[in-house]
Amino acid sequence: METYIAFTSEPIVSPAAGSAGREIGAELEFHGIVRETEHGAAIAGLQYEAYVPMAEREIARIIAGLNTQWPCETVWFIHRIGWVPVGEPSLYIRIRSSHRQQAFHFCMALIDQLKTDAPIWKRAALPENISQPGRSPLDS
Amino acid sequence: METYIAFTSEPIVSPAAGSAGREIGAELEFHGIVRETEHGAAIAGLQYEAYVPMAEREIARIIAGLNTQWPCETVWFIHRIGWVPVGEPSLYIRIRSSHRQQAFHFCMALIDQLKTDAPIWKRAALPENISQPGRSPLDS
Repeated sequence: METYIAFTSEPIVSPAAGSAGREIGAELEFHGIVRETEHGAAIAGLQYEAYVPMAEREIARIIAGLNTQWPCETVWFIHRIGWVPVGEPSLYIRIRSSHRQQAFHFCMALIDQLKTDAPIWKRAALPENISQPGRSPLDS
Repeated sequence: METYIAFTSEPIVSPAAGSAGREIGAELEFHGIVRETEHGAAIAGLQYEAYVPMAEREIARIIAGLNTQWPCETVWFIHRIGWVPVGEPSLYIRIRSSHRQQAFHFCMALIDQLKTDAPIWKRAALPENISQPGRSPLDS
């Protein structure tokens, strides 16, 4: 399996992928997007923080474990950190596998384990706390 | 829920989507790609045939049913028909939903029901039967 893991403070751009190999039957892509409500309250966005070196190792560990259960060919994982406004993705995953079941189960479990195991935190910012659009209210 | 259903004899191009609404938390995309083996034998591609008016109605019916179980915001469904060579997609689905679980379960069930219920058929073509690359061996 090939893996590509990245953390970025810039808006997520789907990476160029090249053509799939001749044994690839499924390509699954997931964007996790910041919603305007968090625990029932309206927010302006989320501030993500990560201990990146440890998070990269943890994501690699999760991916390696999942690959023994649902073997996949290639996994791309990109997580945005810093301020992410409502409507923009904080997470992008692309998975290629021979059969679709592996890709679906791999992707669902990867997101679940990411949320429980990886050293990534988020804080909500309320709309009234936004003074400068595009900047984090938590930085000001 | 908004739905977009299309059958095309051209290579599938992901449709422009515009930005997601502010309550969208998940966007899932799936490409089903023709693999080089079918039932253990090497193939050059698959020839898809569909009774399109009935297939469109059936896909719309499946989507409406799934939406009662896993409500989603928008569903795009594109199926290629005619000759599809190895390595190219025959199916594209994009689903947007508030929460990721709906999108994943909706998409998996949509593909399962597509394969059992929709009037779409496929035939494999062996490599040695290919006389003109890019054309269907079944047309010659």
